[in-house]
Amino acid sequence: MELTERILKADRRALARAISLVENDGEQAQKLLQEVYPHAGQAHIIGITGPPGSGKSTLVSQIARQYRQQGRTVGIVAVDPSSPFTGGALLGDRVRMRDLAGDRGVFVRSMASRGSMGGLARATGDAVTLLDAAGFDLVLIETVGAGQVEVDIAREAHTTLVVEVPGLGDEVQAIKAGLMEIADVFVVNKADHAGVDQTVRALTIMLDMNSAACSWTPPVIKTIALHGEGVADLIEAVDDHWAYLVRENALQDQQRIHAQNRLTRVMRRRLFDELLAKIGPERFEETVMQVATHKIDPYSAAARLMNSKTQGS
Amino acid sequence: MELTERILKADRRALARAISLVENDGEQAQKLLQEVYPHAGQAHIIGITGPPGSGKSTLVSQIARQYRQQGRTVGIVAVDPSSPFTGGALLGDRVRMRDLAGDRGVFVRSMASRGSMGGLARATGDAVTLLDAAGFDLVLIETVGAGQVEVDIAREAHTTLVVEVPGLGDEVQAIKAGLMEIADVFVVNKADHAGVDQTVRALTIMLDMNSAACSWTPPVIKTIALHGEGVADLIEAVDDHWAYLVRENALQDQQRIHAQNRLTRVMRRRLFDELLAKIGPERFEETVMQVATHKIDPYSAAARLMNSKTQGS
Repeated sequence: MELTERILKADRRALARAISLVENDGEQAQKLLQEVYPHAGQAHIIGITGPPGSGKSTLVSQIARQYRQQGRTVGIVAVDPSSPFTGGALLGDRVRMRDLAGDRGVFVRSMASRGSMGGLARATGDAVTLLDAAGFDLVLIETVGAGQVEVDIAREAHTTLVVEVPGLGDEVQAIKAGLMEIADVFVVNKADHAGVDQTVRALTIMLDMNSAACSWTPPVIKTIALHGEGVADLIEAVDDHWAYLVRENALQDQQRIHAQNRLTRVMRRRLFDELLAKIGPERFEETVMQVATHKIDPYSAAARLMNSKTQGS
Repeated sequence: MELTERILKADRRALARAISLVENDGEQAQKLLQEVYPHAGQAHIIGITGPPGSGKSTLVSQIARQYRQQGRTVGIVAVDPSSPFTGGALLGDRVRMRDLAGDRGVFVRSMASRGSMGGLARATGDAVTLLDAAGFDLVLIETVGAGQVEVDIAREAHTTLVVEVPGLGDEVQAIKAGLMEIADVFVVNKADHAGVDQTVRALTIMLDMNSAACSWTPPVIKTIALHGEGVADLIEAVDDHWAYLVRENALQDQQRIHAQNRLTRVMRRRLFDELLAKIGPERFEETVMQVATHKIDPYSAAARLMNSKTQGS
């Protein structure tokens, strides 16, 4: 279709419209993705995650600026899973927009969850595919927080940056342990704050304990994103990681895992929709009520609905 | 089975074993849930969510203690979606265990994600069902952070507490907007810290803007969980919310929505597993590789695999 042609030429309006389509997830979106998909697969996809208040938005805008100075183009998807109802954009987004406004080598889009958690991960993956197919050299995915959704979204990336700030409490240390295994590069932002050396030391110790398992040891980079300090070093670390993936033939493995996650997600949803169409909404609603009143458990109820399908009722 | 009998008597070892079973999600777990499910549906389920470092663990232990003084029994499920790989328990858990140790009217269990985000929400729901069936008067679900998973888990609760702390930045305000719609009660913990009145005021203003829509206006309660201050007021607010749900016949609606979410989740997974068994792992893996190498898009690939099923291949 015409929209596809325009996306492949990185037409900004077409991209904006296409991302809205994948957010709303209709038939048109799927046709579009079908057409652009063969053109994707070239971009270096970089995930950036970390707790609220760690300065990720500023950091992302600095990373984009740095890459632009090298003449490379950058697509940015900012994901906010914490706003499932309001659909509100990130506050930092406006700041970023202002910084990068007028540069046609950068495209920024915020996405918020509209319902189920699965929906956001899917829509994000689709938006990344669109930017990838449009020919952006790098696609940055920024997520707020460090929950499972963020982890799942980070898994779509080739390189994952985990952003920390100095001087957070014990509970944050526990989260670090969980993020340890997804981080390819650690960033300690706000490096002009007290406690920066402790934070770097704590991360380094944890990394040393883990390092035996893999051939890539995540570097720990100090930045002050607000002044752009350390961003050049960060970019170098990111590029090193890409070079490592290429050298070790690790890209193929990553692509395979991404593809499997995606295919599984699509199939689960479609299979359910297909069954629902067969049994009809009344029958489903009836069963929901029986589960709600504890007359039947969800597992037996599922089995019953699935059986009725094959009996042609 | 024997395990079911022991769970219904709130045998602690049986409960611990049963929760491990639902975490591992085998056939035995489903048989167990089938048997206990008709006995569940009596407990008041309370979700507690909020950012890391807001003192949720201490608060949960204080809430439990307060209810114990009223002679009511309490089951606690502490969920940590940020540790998908380590399976590690929350740091606060050990503290809580120590506080409540030896009281047979309290049962505490930590759960961490072992894989997909859907898995954690399911396992948490099943664990809550077990504690409910075991006859605990209240079941508390504590989650770290404010991502979509936490929101989904909070949705399993009758009453959701959102915990804030004074003096956080702008980005946290944005998260508050997202949590606004799931909160039945707001808790401003660490109320001895600077900025508490501003935080309470900000929440109250936001609530006033939203209040027209519903008949329940979430109260904002100040606590210092470390010293137990304000916890009695908090308990009163929670009990008020329960009375409101009963009075307005809102419990049935909640149960229906919970049942629908749960049934949908079970069916999606089972339908996928069923299809996978039919087409075989080789065929699936082949298709994954075609998606990974961008020879086919995930939507067309899903359609093809789903069609091949009905053709009996």
